[in-house]
Amino acid sequence: MQIETLHKKIGDWLSDSRKESDTVLSSRIRLARNLDRKPFCHWASSSQRKEIYNELVGALKSSDFCSKGMLFLRIDELPKVDRMLLVERYLISIEHSHGKVYSGLAFSEGEIISLMINEEDHLRMQVLYPYLRLHEAFGLSQELEMSVSKKVKFAANREFGFLTSCPTNVGTGLRASVMVHLPALVIDGQIGQILQAVNKLGLAVRGIFGEGTQSIGSIFQISNQVTLGKTEEEIIIDVEKMVKEVTGYEQKAREKIVKSRKIEIEDKIGRAYGVFTNAKVLSSKETIDLLSILKLGIDLGLLRSGKITDDKINAARIQTQPAHLQKFAGKELTYPERDAYRAKVLKDIFSRKRGK
Amino acid sequence: MQIETLHKKIGDWLSDSRKESDTVLSSRIRLARNLDRKPFCHWASSSQRKEIYNELVGALKSSDFCSKGMLFLRIDELPKVDRMLLVERYLISIEHSHGKVYSGLAFSEGEIISLMINEEDHLRMQVLYPYLRLHEAFGLSQELEMSVSKKVKFAANREFGFLTSCPTNVGTGLRASVMVHLPALVIDGQIGQILQAVNKLGLAVRGIFGEGTQSIGSIFQISNQVTLGKTEEEIIIDVEKMVKEVTGYEQKAREKIVKSRKIEIEDKIGRAYGVFTNAKVLSSKETIDLLSILKLGIDLGLLRSGKITDDKINAARIQTQPAHLQKFAGKELTYPERDAYRAKVLKDIFSRKRGK
Repeated sequence: MQIETLHKKIGDWLSDSRKESDTVLSSRIRLARNLDRKPFCHWASSSQRKEIYNELVGALKSSDFCSKGMLFLRIDELPKVDRMLLVERYLISIEHSHGKVYSGLAFSEGEIISLMINEEDHLRMQVLYPYLRLHEAFGLSQELEMSVSKKVKFAANREFGFLTSCPTNVGTGLRASVMVHLPALVIDGQIGQILQAVNKLGLAVRGIFGEGTQSIGSIFQISNQVTLGKTEEEIIIDVEKMVKEVTGYEQKAREKIVKSRKIEIEDKIGRAYGVFTNAKVLSSKETIDLLSILKLGIDLGLLRSGKITDDKINAARIQTQPAHLQKFAGKELTYPERDAYRAKVLKDIFSRKRGK
Repeated sequence: MQIETLHKKIGDWLSDSRKESDTVLSSRIRLARNLDRKPFCHWASSSQRKEIYNELVGALKSSDFCSKGMLFLRIDELPKVDRMLLVERYLISIEHSHGKVYSGLAFSEGEIISLMINEEDHLRMQVLYPYLRLHEAFGLSQELEMSVSKKVKFAANREFGFLTSCPTNVGTGLRASVMVHLPALVIDGQIGQILQAVNKLGLAVRGIFGEGTQSIGSIFQISNQVTLGKTEEEIIIDVEKMVKEVTGYEQKAREKIVKSRKIEIEDKIGRAYGVFTNAKVLSSKETIDLLSILKLGIDLGLLRSGKITDDKINAARIQTQPAHLQKFAGKELTYPERDAYRAKVLKDIFSRKRGK
């Protein structure tokens, strides 16, 4: 595995091989851990960051779990386009992409597991699965954590649990988040109300790139706010329950719009396809919004053409992001060049007969 | 010739058989005449309107010019959809379509000549030609008028010339108008300034259905305001001069946008085609706007596909109007039904390989 060819494929967590759900795209478990008796990243000097980095990379490489098939990268040694590529693949956070000295990443073939070193915490372990599989993802993250904790000692406290750089993560250090696709609630105008209710019940709703990002393409992340005072299982069950409730509303909204606004929806779908196969300029935002409509078309059975598949939509969503485009083009592209190149890539994807 | 099949063809004044211009669509000459010693239409009683109608129809039918190949219709005896159809074909005015008693129409095969009886004036003679051919159109209107004036006496006055119902038409009774397509001036944002200049120079600029209508699809009508104190030739030369000036600016704007905004224009063209071949709902306004973009694409040589021709654009512009759609459907259509049917007709036109 190498970063040079990463842009050509799609992470396994976006795989369509066994379709479980139309509304839940992926599940993510993230555990925050810090080494015992080492300053948190934001307070650490360069040499302390180096120590932390070396200790963790050593531990990971020697652990049963991470010893084989993982790619280790120094983010601060990567060119900007590669750092953006990793953000676009959900392997690192935007903050981590700024590449402070001794920022590290390790991730597995297929991109199910990724580990950030020296981000906000010393170690952030992420497991990303397709569909609503928080329990499975949590199980894997536990194995991973146990494997690493055999090699290093994590900072913890009897009263609070695991200690983290930001107080919102103290305790379990767990963030369970689920990416959902809610186009019918957006079209039907109910989304604002639903999201408000989710927030009131103590869960967070965010855009596709996490904290501080806006929702586009009717894609939302639902996750826990609280990491303290609940067990990991309770947190996961809460998130899962909320996801099932929200996607239940989405299903009802889909039935409603198909009944009362079918031609309008078919029109949106047709136009989205028409734009992808004919436009010469396409922004990132418009692309994501139109992909959302096509995905809805597949889910509602309103797309009979074999030319549009979930695989193509996933590929289009990931591979038309700025860094991916530049990797495909093999050079830096200005904003207008990207929009033109994106239109070409999309035309190519959606004009092809079948498959990926 | 019969009104039942009129919607299936396109008037000769929209013919593309010998292309002269990209920017001038058609030229129209209209002469307003009233019978001597008869009250103007707005003051005439029903029985007086009947007398006027009978006298004029009799004269027209016995004149050399109109005796053969003309279709005579009583507008007030037509169903509403047929009256709207005639408006959509530029054969009668919106006012005339209201169908006051003894409202008449006669028009020639190919729709070059049309005569309205008992509209604002007793007789309004219209000659419609493709491209910038005001002189030819005026010549034909003169022949027509001479032929009719052998049979009836028109109201005239030594001081003012021909008398008309509205003072703005007194004198020559002539309106010379030219339909121009100015998409580049609209895209480039210069159009407002240009139209203001035209108005200041004493000419009128209007939408495609004449007085009081808005411009859509970047189509404008340029015509004379004054009918008094100038000869017919002077009026025509003034209008012609202005049309040449305005279309000269349009040509310059086209060169400019092709140089500086080519991909944006190609994008607009591609998307317009994408919408026509994929949308399920299309409003009349959107249709005209997108047709304007495709026409620009042809004119600029940016459309290589043989699927889009001037003939198809002309057919689409005329035949997707509400009454035309209902004639094709063979029944009344609600607004949403029209928009859906329009999308089908357009998809059909633009998916076909070639020809009309």
